[in-house]
Amino acid sequence: MADTLDSAATFSPLRWRGDTLELLDQTLLPTREEWLTCNTVEEVAEAIRRLSVRGAPAIGVAAAYGLVVGLTPVPAEGELADRFAEVAELLLSTRPTAVNLRWAIERGRELFARHREAGAAAARAALLDWAKVVHAEDIETNRRMGEHGAALFEGEQRVLTHCNAGALATAGIGTAIGVISASFARGGVAMVWVDETRPLLQGARLTSWELQRLEIPFKLVTDSSVGALMSRGLVDGVVVGSDRIAANGDIANKIGTYTVAVLAQRHDVPFYVAAPLSTIDRETATGADIPIEERDGEEVTDVFGTRVAPAGTEAFNLAFDVTPAELIAGIVTEEGVLRPPYSESIRQAFARAQP
Amino acid sequence: MADTLDSAATFSPLRWRGDTLELLDQTLLPTREEWLTCNTVEEVAEAIRRLSVRGAPAIGVAAAYGLVVGLTPVPAEGELADRFAEVAELLLSTRPTAVNLRWAIERGRELFARHREAGAAAARAALLDWAKVVHAEDIETNRRMGEHGAALFEGEQRVLTHCNAGALATAGIGTAIGVISASFARGGVAMVWVDETRPLLQGARLTSWELQRLEIPFKLVTDSSVGALMSRGLVDGVVVGSDRIAANGDIANKIGTYTVAVLAQRHDVPFYVAAPLSTIDRETATGADIPIEERDGEEVTDVFGTRVAPAGTEAFNLAFDVTPAELIAGIVTEEGVLRPPYSESIRQAFARAQP
Repeated sequence: MADTLDSAATFSPLRWRGDTLELLDQTLLPTREEWLTCNTVEEVAEAIRRLSVRGAPAIGVAAAYGLVVGLTPVPAEGELADRFAEVAELLLSTRPTAVNLRWAIERGRELFARHREAGAAAARAALLDWAKVVHAEDIETNRRMGEHGAALFEGEQRVLTHCNAGALATAGIGTAIGVISASFARGGVAMVWVDETRPLLQGARLTSWELQRLEIPFKLVTDSSVGALMSRGLVDGVVVGSDRIAANGDIANKIGTYTVAVLAQRHDVPFYVAAPLSTIDRETATGADIPIEERDGEEVTDVFGTRVAPAGTEAFNLAFDVTPAELIAGIVTEEGVLRPPYSESIRQAFARAQP
Repeated sequence: MADTLDSAATFSPLRWRGDTLELLDQTLLPTREEWLTCNTVEEVAEAIRRLSVRGAPAIGVAAAYGLVVGLTPVPAEGELADRFAEVAELLLSTRPTAVNLRWAIERGRELFARHREAGAAAARAALLDWAKVVHAEDIETNRRMGEHGAALFEGEQRVLTHCNAGALATAGIGTAIGVISASFARGGVAMVWVDETRPLLQGARLTSWELQRLEIPFKLVTDSSVGALMSRGLVDGVVVGSDRIAANGDIANKIGTYTVAVLAQRHDVPFYVAAPLSTIDRETATGADIPIEERDGEEVTDVFGTRVAPAGTEAFNLAFDVTPAELIAGIVTEEGVLRPPYSESIRQAFARAQP
């Protein structure tokens, strides 16, 4: 109990208890609320791979704790370096697109390099302290993003979000949903359009679940209804999360995000992205350089165990797509709302964050 | 057996046997191939309402036979007119968007008016002969649309279709899929992108099933993947069906069609519609005048009996959307491929059809 952090959200999808990482198994929501206990790094990796924990910031925090789990029990001194390298590599291999994962592992590697000489137990202890900082930082980062983004919507607007970029995707109040809930509290948002987000239905399953808990009115639609909603003038704004932002402001996010952005442009609806600076990868020049994960076609041909396509049907299942910077009205970060041209505003935000 | 028509397709979703209309229950495909026997007009109406038979042209043919089923057994002479009016009204009330339904009922009403003086049995017999003509005409209309549309695609193109506008949606080889299969036979189409078409998954369930039977290569994607496919240059053309076409060339079709058309425009991918002249409603001036059916939210919150959204979630479930004429490169009809400006080309096509 002592080892849990208060997320300031009404719930948090991950917690450190004793020497284990506990994850709310998001594949079972909203039907069942069950916690996974990860005693080994293999269990952490598998939980990330199968989306029991998902959302770029939450994956980053889970990976930080995963490094600690991988050094539990503490390895023999002679095996420490190899073991750590193996653990870091395993976690890094789980999912290619979300850069927060790589960001956490790289920071963990630097920290380990500084502490390994002190011995295995000390290195592990330093990593645990650091993972808790990463966890606490994410909560604080979410809070600040909500503050900055709350002013984007004025006067009871109807805001659409895609996938789930809420508390379930982070350690705190969420990125896109953090902005929405902060704005809702001020009367800027009246209701939320939730698109279901096939194939894994994070909108229908997770965002609906969160908005119910937050008591924010919402309506669920299929992904392909967004065009009709906009052409009927029913959407005033869009805010989504991101899994990686390139140096020029192009973003990767859940498949379907690009389509929403194209529709928003056609209908003069402002399209915002909410993501912490840890999601911005300045080493990735443009969206074309972001690796896009392709997942198993069965996620499309089977819906929760019901086969929907004929046997032998092949599906092409991209997990993410890229939305070019030109379609994005603003990127909400903990350092404020970045505006085009993003190459410049991103550079300035990092300068403010690391003076 | 004698009462079935050869559709020239590899299968047909409806057939007249003895005094009953038999419908392939499309809600069960692709898992089960079961035929519904409609002995009463209430059964025909219910089959249309629950989408056991669907697709604008197939609904038109089913409604024509439905008028006959409604006069079986032959009513007493004194009840004939009231009974016919009641039957026509019931069928007309099933679904509001597809104009082929209204077109069939109106033609049936005219025919009935001409034959009712001859007595109930004769009027019913005339309606049955006429329904078979409607059925046969749809087969022939499909064939001619395929001929005209086959030349749209040249050189092994990758063509995307939305929903199901195939043999299952008509009495013949289909509208959009008729064009695709005719073009495939000439080498103009190499493969088909099938989007799944939530909420009822007509793409995943029905179009996949048809393309397998036609031995045309295809890949299934979620609806929200279309933007990513186009931005990667993987789509050379789009062809869809329609439920109603306004006099100015705006079209109503399955929800999500508009989104595909907007993406196609952005990526310079030609977007075609394939529909018989019976789908063109010259009394509807523009797309804004087309009534759009709203269906039960449970089609979104529940996927084949599995609840996916939390209890209490409200869904907004439009069955169709409107694609403006400006996004349409051509409309394939049995009278040729109509080109913009559609007000003019539609007028000319009707003039050719009814000289």
